Amino acid sequence: MDISTIVGTVFGTICILVSIMLTSDWGLDPNNLIRFLDIPSVFIVIGGTLATMMMRYSFGEIFSIGGIAKNAFILRPVDPTAVIKEFVQLAQIARKDGLLALERVTIEDPFMSKGINYCVDGSETDQIKAVLSQEISAMKARHTAGQDMLKAMELSAPAFGMIGTLIGLVNMLANMDDPKSIGPAMAVAILTTLYGAVIANLFAIPLKDKLAMRSGAEADIKVLMIEGILAINRGENPRMLEESLYSFISPKQREQMRTGK
Amino acid sequence: MDISTIVGTVFGTICILVSIMLTSDWGLDPNNLIRFLDIPSVFIVIGGTLATMMMRYSFGEIFSIGGIAKNAFILRPVDPTAVIKEFVQLAQIARKDGLLALERVTIEDPFMSKGINYCVDGSETDQIKAVLSQEISAMKARHTAGQDMLKAMELSAPAFGMIGTLIGLVNMLANMDDPKSIGPAMAVAILTTLYGAVIANLFAIPLKDKLAMRSGAEADIKVLMIEGILAINRGENPRMLEESLYSFISPKQREQMRTGK
Amino acid sequence: MDISTIVGTVFGTICILVSIMLTSDWGLDPNNLIRFLDIPSVFIVIGGTLATMMMRYSFGEIFSIGGIAKNAFILRPVDPTAVIKEFVQLAQIARKDGLLALERVTIEDPFMSKGINYCVDGSETDQIKAVLSQEISAMKARHTAGQDMLKAMELSAPAFGMIGTLIGLVNMLANMDDPKSIGPAMAVAILTTLYGAVIANLFAIPLKDKLAMRSGAEADIKVLMIEGILAINRGENPRMLEESLYSFISPKQREQMRTGK
Amino acid sequence: MDISTIVGTVFGTICILVSIMLTSDWGLDPNNLIRFLDIPSVFIVIGGTLATMMMRYSFGEIFSIGGIAKNAFILRPVDPTAVIKEFVQLAQIARKDGLLALERVTIEDPFMSKGINYCVDGSETDQIKAVLSQEISAMKARHTAGQDMLKAMELSAPAFGMIGTLIGLVNMLANMDDPKSIGPAMAVAILTTLYGAVIANLFAIPLKDKLAMRSGAEADIKVLMIEGILAINRGENPRMLEESLYSFISPKQREQMRTGK
Amino acid sequence: MDISTIVGTVFGTICILVSIMLTSDWGLDPNNLIRFLDIPSVFIVIGGTLATMMMRYSFGEIFSIGGIAKNAFILRPVDPTAVIKEFVQLAQIARKDGLLALERVTIEDPFMSKGINYCVDGSETDQIKAVLSQEISAMKARHTAGQDMLKAMELSAPAFGMIGTLIGLVNMLANMDDPKSIGPAMAVAILTTLYGAVIANLFAIPLKDKLAMRSGAEADIKVLMIEGILAINRGENPRMLEESLYSFISPKQREQMRTGK
Repeated sequence: MDISTIVGTVFGTICILVSIMLTSDWGLDPNNLIRFLDIPSVFIVIGGTLATMMMRYSFGEIFSIGGIAKNAFILRPVDPTAVIKEFVQLAQIARKDGLLALERVTIEDPFMSKGINYCVDGSETDQIKAVLSQEISAMKARHTAGQDMLKAMELSAPAFGMIGTLIGLVNMLANMDDPKSIGPAMAVAILTTLYGAVIANLFAIPLKDKLAMRSGAEADIKVLMIEGILAINRGENPRMLEESLYSFISPKQREQMRTGK
Repeated sequence: MDISTIVGTVFGTICILVSIMLTSDWGLDPNNLIRFLDIPSVFIVIGGTLATMMMRYSFGEIFSIGGIAKNAFILRPVDPTAVIKEFVQLAQIARKDGLLALERVTIEDPFMSKGINYCVDGSETDQIKAVLSQEISAMKARHTAGQDMLKAMELSAPAFGMIGTLIGLVNMLANMDDPKSIGPAMAVAILTTLYGAVIANLFAIPLKDKLAMRSGAEADIKVLMIEGILAINRGENPRMLEESLYSFISPKQREQMRTGK
Repeated sequence: MDISTIVGTVFGTICILVSIMLTSDWGLDPNNLIRFLDIPSVFIVIGGTLATMMMRYSFGEIFSIGGIAKNAFILRPVDPTAVIKEFVQLAQIARKDGLLALERVTIEDPFMSKGINYCVDGSETDQIKAVLSQEISAMKARHTAGQDMLKAMELSAPAFGMIGTLIGLVNMLANMDDPKSIGPAMAVAILTTLYGAVIANLFAIPLKDKLAMRSGAEADIKVLMIEGILAINRGENPRMLEESLYSFISPKQREQMRTGK
Repeated sequence: MDISTIVGTVFGTICILVSIMLTSDWGLDPNNLIRFLDIPSVFIVIGGTLATMMMRYSFGEIFSIGGIAKNAFILRPVDPTAVIKEFVQLAQIARKDGLLALERVTIEDPFMSKGINYCVDGSETDQIKAVLSQEISAMKARHTAGQDMLKAMELSAPAFGMIGTLIGLVNMLANMDDPKSIGPAMAVAILTTLYGAVIANLFAIPLKDKLAMRSGAEADIKVLMIEGILAINRGENPRMLEESLYSFISPKQREQMRTGK
Repeated sequence: MDISTIVGTVFGTICILVSIMLTSDWGLDPNNLIRFLDIPSVFIVIGGTLATMMMRYSFGEIFSIGGIAKNAFILRPVDPTAVIKEFVQLAQIARKDGLLALERVTIEDPFMSKGINYCVDGSETDQIKAVLSQEISAMKARHTAGQDMLKAMELSAPAFGMIGTLIGLVNMLANMDDPKSIGPAMAVAILTTLYGAVIANLFAIPLKDKLAMRSGAEADIKVLMIEGILAINRGENPRMLEESLYSFISPKQREQMRTGK
């Protein structure tokens, strides 16, 4: 579980709800919430956004958005220093007993395992690099597709918020006989713009950014892994391999690795 | 037929119409629709957008926009796993009976067929790659031209919506003698902005995005095909060819292929 | 003459004028036009835009903008299929009688003629490619400079429209003694924003886009020509040259060429 | 002196001042200017912009902005045709008397002189290209830094204009007891937005664009010079050198060079 | 300490505070400040921004933002001319006593020291370049991550400012019974927009720009160092090394170096 993302989502929602309920004498009036819930307004913003999502994506893809968003709330951290240590051990085994000895080593990460298998199979360095790099590109493309759905939501929700407000304004302006009704009618008209802004800024944009950073971090680790796999295939010595992988991590992490040993 | 795109278009239109007709006592008043239809407003938004399209494109290109938009509603899915299977078969034939044996194999996809023909003709790998890559670039350029027309519409419609509202505002402000007419006059002025927003956000943007994704998927399949064609031309063994094409598809699709066999 | 651009410009202007003149009883009142013409408003929008153009460009460049814009209205279509046919003929002559025989062939297009001359002079393929590519880059740079002037106009006109409206608002707000004058004063203030929007959206943006597409099409043809010239210099056979140039044109055009022969 | 830039700046300022002073009976009332000058408004827009400039840049850099802006008003045109002619002469000397003979030739332009010196020193073509290209990159980087200061001003001025208007609005809305004061108070509040828009659109943006174009033109000439220097170092014949440098200038300039000789 | 950044931050804050306190008779009324402080408004803007930061980043990263922002206020200037002088000395030692003699030289900068160590160890030029370039990329990536946090703040703060204003407007419009309360209620509603604009424009944007420039300057020095290290490894003569490093600094700095010697 990615605690900060969950806490952030809950806290952001609370901020909005408290702002709505707060009365001038510092009490919280839950009745205010009713004023901010307008079914037709929900209908046009959520409905319109969903409609343009359907125009862009297949039903299967739209159903998968829940799973994609869920990814942002699940923590799958890979520690680069642990990966470097694992590579140093693999390099030591390969040095001592040859590349074939790596076949018996259990490697948990599927990407790294696949790469080491290529080394055992005697593939050429260039070919290994090409296949694994293509795998990273394909992973990035899949991740980008998920982020694009949130991006589409980020753009559509405020647009339909504005469309809803325009419709409300036209209806209000055409019925100005009762001056008392103008204020409340306009309040309702503004609600769709508010909904659109909240959907975009509290959900779509931060989740999209989170997923993009996740994807970037995952790709970074995989690039480090390719570097390590190629070094093992070239038969580099463990010391040099460690040194060159160091340039992928921050000075602070390097310090921790050196002192931790 | 691309059902989700059609359903999305219809559902989005219904969302807007229902929002317009909904009365405060939860009934639907079709008379409201009349208030939202103003011929001069339609004229300036549709007319102005069309005029700037004519300035940019030839009449032939503008007429073709219907066909381009239609593409978004027609489904032409190509299954990458089927393509990989076909390549494995071709590689097996080429291995057993030589490249010339591929001449008798019927290949449905015109791009793939063309590439295999080059192999049969004994063209060099580099040259095949250059010609087929150029073909993909040219296809992308043609697709981009179509998307650019929708992009032009996406930008022009809201601009002419704003111009229409400004014209309406000026006329309203100059005739403020009758206070009762201010509201309805302003309502009419706002309509052009509403039209522009609906044209851009409910039609031009989602269809443009749909076409862009289609184009990307088509190019991805063609890139996979080039990889397969080049591997066959190099005489790679079917097993390795399958493995390297796997990196173009998602882990889920790979699993399906492995278990489906 | 590029008819669609001319028709679009005229039709767009008519759309705006009709919208202004249209009365509520569906008549056209030319007197309305007078309300929309305000000399000081014209002065600040046109004057301010012109001033920032002068700050950016020399007087000579500003005078040339008429010629640049005129280009958008003149049609200079080059048919890629005709160019391919010409190259096939040149390749046949070169095959039969040698490269020197091309000296006696009359080639209308100056770019193509120049490239063939290099072949006759015995220049190396790499050098021909470098010089002709540089020529395309230089052409694109010149075209971009022209489009940049329209881009500057597109950005300045709405900015000075807003500045004019702000000035008008300040004057109106400071003189609110006579409530009757507020409406008309505000109407005048809005006019500059309207002028800026019309200049940008009805003229600057579509003409800029038109010129950019023209420039792209011209560059595409020249890239095709380079490919053809280099193939002739390498002594490629006419059949293969035709095949490789085919990848530059659309499948539809290829079909036309094949059936037209 | 770059006359068009100076005339543009003066003319743009006059446009704004005249718009402010113009009365409804076509006279000019200088008293209006007083209404548009509000010291606190000047303070927040200029002060806020200056403050964010100080946060970004050192004091030395901020003082240099005057010098940078001054560059936009000074004309330093370099004629590419004159440069080409000079290169042809140098190539003729180098052909007749050897590269060392170039040592005695006086070359005014410091960049060109430096490059020719490298030739005389017997440096290798690749090394000359690397050093001179790095020099162009460094020059571009310095120019971009100057333009970035104007860009920061372009973004900060309207932002602080909006902040000032918001502050003015809050104060106005909290003191609505005297209805007569609302108009003038709002007029003052709008002034900061006007100041921000004028600073950005009449000064920062056009001067930034001017400097960018200057920088581009300077880099273009230097790229042409590198091409010429390398050709001389390779001992190319003067005729071919002239021909290849022609591709850097417009067809019109080529025509002038050919007829002018 | 980076004085200009500190002065700018303080001066910008003073500008805003003075603008708020200034009364029409040119006095400063601190009571005005109270009107501009509204706890619920602070809560929604700061709270909402913080919430979306938590959704994007881990708690550890959010706590580090103080340290990142602090970097903008601390001056760590590296003088490129001093670095060039140091390289000339190192090159002289290497020339006279061999690369191994560099082992005894104390080099303060850790990056430069690391690079010279590689030379002493006898690493190949290409490998040194690869490792050190990767180090620069990693440094840039770390810096960009810090700037991205400020970028997220820059985008979220105004968005939650707008959301707060919309909530305030809806509440105000629904309670318009007492006309006297409309003004103050609207004043409060506008405050969140003001807060968002100040956070973005007075803090997030200038600090982000400052950090980006710092990062760029640091990378530039490191690129210069790589160039110097590689030249020493290739055994270039000190004179040529100095000359080629000169192209990284401005003509003014070169002049200073030449005259200062």
